[in-house]
Amino acid sequence: MMNCITDFFTYETTKSVVVKSWTIGIINRVVQLLIITYFIGWVFYHEKAYQVRDTAIESSVMTKVKGFGVYNGKVMDVADYVIPTQGASVFCIITKLITTENQMQGYCPETEPKFGCKDDSDCTHWMQNTGGNGMKTGRCVGFNSSYRTCEIRGWCPAEIDTIKTEPMREAENFTIFIKNSIRFPRFNFTKGNLLPNITNKYMHKCNFHPERDIYCPIFRVGDVMKFAHQDFDTLAKDGGVIGIKIGWVCNLDMSDEHCNPKYSFTRLDSISEKSKVSPGYNFRYAKYFKTNNGTEYRTLLKAYAIRFDVMVYGDAGKFDMIPTLINMVAAFTSVGVGTVLCDIILLNFLKGADQYKAKKFEEVSEQQIKSSVPNGNDHYRSNQTLSLKYDEKQSTDSGAFSIGL
Amino acid sequence: MMNCITDFFTYETTKSVVVKSWTIGIINRVVQLLIITYFIGWVFYHEKAYQVRDTAIESSVMTKVKGFGVYNGKVMDVADYVIPTQGASVFCIITKLITTENQMQGYCPETEPKFGCKDDSDCTHWMQNTGGNGMKTGRCVGFNSSYRTCEIRGWCPAEIDTIKTEPMREAENFTIFIKNSIRFPRFNFTKGNLLPNITNKYMHKCNFHPERDIYCPIFRVGDVMKFAHQDFDTLAKDGGVIGIKIGWVCNLDMSDEHCNPKYSFTRLDSISEKSKVSPGYNFRYAKYFKTNNGTEYRTLLKAYAIRFDVMVYGDAGKFDMIPTLINMVAAFTSVGVGTVLCDIILLNFLKGADQYKAKKFEEVSEQQIKSSVPNGNDHYRSNQTLSLKYDEKQSTDSGAFSIGL
Amino acid sequence: MMNCITDFFTYETTKSVVVKSWTIGIINRVVQLLIITYFIGWVFYHEKAYQVRDTAIESSVMTKVKGFGVYNGKVMDVADYVIPTQGASVFCIITKLITTENQMQGYCPETEPKFGCKDDSDCTHWMQNTGGNGMKTGRCVGFNSSYRTCEIRGWCPAEIDTIKTEPMREAENFTIFIKNSIRFPRFNFTKGNLLPNITNKYMHKCNFHPERDIYCPIFRVGDVMKFAHQDFDTLAKDGGVIGIKIGWVCNLDMSDEHCNPKYSFTRLDSISEKSKVSPGYNFRYAKYFKTNNGTEYRTLLKAYAIRFDVMVYGDAGKFDMIPTLINMVAAFTSVGVGTVLCDIILLNFLKGADQYKAKKFEEVSEQQIKSSVPNGNDHYRSNQTLSLKYDEKQSTDSGAFSIGL
Repeated sequence: MMNCITDFFTYETTKSVVVKSWTIGIINRVVQLLIITYFIGWVFYHEKAYQVRDTAIESSVMTKVKGFGVYNGKVMDVADYVIPTQGASVFCIITKLITTENQMQGYCPETEPKFGCKDDSDCTHWMQNTGGNGMKTGRCVGFNSSYRTCEIRGWCPAEIDTIKTEPMREAENFTIFIKNSIRFPRFNFTKGNLLPNITNKYMHKCNFHPERDIYCPIFRVGDVMKFAHQDFDTLAKDGGVIGIKIGWVCNLDMSDEHCNPKYSFTRLDSISEKSKVSPGYNFRYAKYFKTNNGTEYRTLLKAYAIRFDVMVYGDAGKFDMIPTLINMVAAFTSVGVGTVLCDIILLNFLKGADQYKAKKFEEVSEQQIKSSVPNGNDHYRSNQTLSLKYDEKQSTDSGAFSIGL
Repeated sequence: MMNCITDFFTYETTKSVVVKSWTIGIINRVVQLLIITYFIGWVFYHEKAYQVRDTAIESSVMTKVKGFGVYNGKVMDVADYVIPTQGASVFCIITKLITTENQMQGYCPETEPKFGCKDDSDCTHWMQNTGGNGMKTGRCVGFNSSYRTCEIRGWCPAEIDTIKTEPMREAENFTIFIKNSIRFPRFNFTKGNLLPNITNKYMHKCNFHPERDIYCPIFRVGDVMKFAHQDFDTLAKDGGVIGIKIGWVCNLDMSDEHCNPKYSFTRLDSISEKSKVSPGYNFRYAKYFKTNNGTEYRTLLKAYAIRFDVMVYGDAGKFDMIPTLINMVAAFTSVGVGTVLCDIILLNFLKGADQYKAKKFEEVSEQQIKSSVPNGNDHYRSNQTLSLKYDEKQSTDSGAFSIGL
Repeated sequence: MMNCITDFFTYETTKSVVVKSWTIGIINRVVQLLIITYFIGWVFYHEKAYQVRDTAIESSVMTKVKGFGVYNGKVMDVADYVIPTQGASVFCIITKLITTENQMQGYCPETEPKFGCKDDSDCTHWMQNTGGNGMKTGRCVGFNSSYRTCEIRGWCPAEIDTIKTEPMREAENFTIFIKNSIRFPRFNFTKGNLLPNITNKYMHKCNFHPERDIYCPIFRVGDVMKFAHQDFDTLAKDGGVIGIKIGWVCNLDMSDEHCNPKYSFTRLDSISEKSKVSPGYNFRYAKYFKTNNGTEYRTLLKAYAIRFDVMVYGDAGKFDMIPTLINMVAAFTSVGVGTVLCDIILLNFLKGADQYKAKKFEEVSEQQIKSSVPNGNDHYRSNQTLSLKYDEKQSTDSGAFSIGL
């Protein structure tokens, strides 16, 4: 019993060969130095492995657009050209409108050239078609005195969306105010993009600039286009989607004031630039009215818009004991990995490699064990024999096999 | 001093016992082979551990619905049945409407049966209730000549939402066009779901099909229901939420054209299928009008809709030196893990295990050390004694303790 | 050839020194126990390393607000005060409105005091300004008989947004019903927040309470404010953003009924509380009307609202063979890490450290190897010499260097 406990409280450590050779000694220390450098420089300093991280940022974005434009002789304000209206992280600024006023339910001729017809037989095959401006009745009716198109049932008159109209150029000077609050829930750290040093006065005259005014939360639409390497005129004409990214990469071991937003800009619908199939971004919506006698009519609007997506991402780190310990242990044990390389050199390429091999490897073969088993109690003698043998017979185990030892 | 430096530039390597036994040799190599296979097959080939990954995909989704339906004798187009209108990644197609026209502020009787009453005392307890169609006044008034209900103040007449109406069946044939641009910011890789080989002509006649037309970006509503294993009629009647997932799982070590979207479909509000408490999806909204004398009135709409959520996820990998090196080192060092298993076999289950133990373990006890301390300089002699001793006294350290050596 | 194969099927294991010392034995076993405890307690029990995890939750949120409020003498219902209307995961409850009725396109004086003027020269510098209520014409016109302001072109009359109005206090009693379905795609596990034991009857009278009714999916607005540690009156007056988080942290090794939602509440726009620059949350929208003769006019609404963001996160784990195996191997091999510490103690701080060093380290120097190379075949003799030598010359390698051995 006592013996058992004594046997349990023992300590096993590997027997080591210390090679006093300048060549391999220097290689060994250099490799160890490289590994330590890797851990200190990359793992600890660059990757900050001593920190716990939080990327599950909680964020709230409010936006407010300002500016006035003239379109079709009317002055448009925010309530007219921003959709949806509630100032969330995704919003569209309408830059071009094709307006079809006073549509009522009824029957009327199609407007698209492809629906041109001579008689009803030209129209029947369109009846299942989901395109156009309404349900095809299959009849061919006069669009004007000289031109006939297939008739539709639906909101009439049908929209003519091939009209060339100019975009609202004033949109270039509109400003977008972004208010962004963030929270890293793991650290209960809260901050916002209205930094404490931003005064009311500064806010009234600043515009974001990537060098001069990097913390100004007001963005001129034209500037945003420029920062995203886009041409305002093209986007205003065809529509598109612009991403405004706010990055909160914070080292919370430093003081709060070093945790600041970083703005970047990119075009999100890059596909629209290249593809001829479906360029830009537009959508249709309607305003509904009623006549005195209760008949509903509407104004259909086809809007070309620049959509803005405010995207917030965050990555905060703070010192924590557990990852520090784990990574320090990993670093310490990894220093030993260098022996894999050094062993290969020592046992294969160094002068006297065979002698080193003889020192490193003791050999024991099945035959020796078998021969010693019958006189099992006579350990001393059999071991003596063994030790003589292994000294005589040099191990030929090649270093290459030792990889991953 | 020089001595110190010499002592520093040494190399320590473990002394090893090479067991020349077929049994354990084969086990050893098989275990090593398994570990290597695991690393090559799983870690490197399957998990692509030689790549850096980017899952923080930047994505922009535009959607456009097409099709016409007839509802309540009116032709409905996109501007009527899609909400919100701006063609973003989340949109609803209204399939059923309960319309209450010409509501004005005033007093009127409730419509729900539970508000039925005999006299005012039946109505007072409802006054704090948030249900129904307006603020309860606590009075009992005549709904019609034979039936009395509690009076409300609010938009009158109150909505009767128990009316049975048929959904708009044409919605099954509506098509959804999805334009999706993505970007993997880490690799600055941009692509869209309008693949370069998709022509305008193909787009005008194709419909997505999971086998035939896997890259067609146009989806028939009825097909989407089928792919999500849902019944269109049930959804059109009660409303629901369908997820259209676009997956971009890309190996960027291969050429661009292998990075393609994968569409999948699922019902997101699965809870609505089972729960009787709140089936389906509906919401109320209003259109506001004004009479000639400036009084506001509205049309209240209770809309049953199918909501579509276009969800984009991405996972791209590209070869990178750092993870490759780290994982190769991990692989090399892990080959050594096999010794844990082999040691257990060698020292416990193999014939001649005791001899192997004797070869592997040298024993040194506190007593020996103590006895040798007084004549500390006479190392040779004391070691001699030790070596005799440990050869005589075979280590009884069991292999089980060696786990994790 | 055969020799080669025989040489290949060998097994290499480290030669170990077993130290039979109570001190180091106990230290060794305690360190090993700590490591095992760490792995069992932290890695396996706490971090559940035996599970594969899925955090890419698929979720669908539907919301429905109920309640009636009186504002400006009108009863407001859901269709009036909730925006956007479609009951998605983000919605605003309007609590205060500044209404400007009957705006038409035209010319009129500004309303903001800063645009006060004596003559046109006071107005010209405002012409490029994007603020105010319309495009500045540069003229100074009479606001009333005693007061003159710069003229604008746009929607007239201009909004006066400094009017003090009371928020709609009834909003405190509004209820929000949240229906949330989730799915963990990796495990194809589906659940919803309408738990199976929730009856229709319970739903009609329950309100969420963090202790009594933790699974009731109906939330009183006033309660939500309280749970988020906010004052309803302040938020109703200025507007704000409240986050309702639904967490699904599930151990899918247990039965389904243990996977339940956890609700938490937080104010998301914490920045608005502190900053005086831009407090609260408001936005403008318009309702459009037409006169009999077709002229468009509108009602402009500046809405102060409480925005609710329902955010769903999930983290599910389920037993899986691969992570279990990997982590068990990691645990087993990590037990060996304790030797690093024990070696330092053994070789430096223990009584008889020098003797232990002598046992652990065999020394071989370049000189010895060189001297033995000429008579390279006489291995036995040279090794004999070596062994004599290393026994005589005690290794002075310090334990500190052994770190990471």
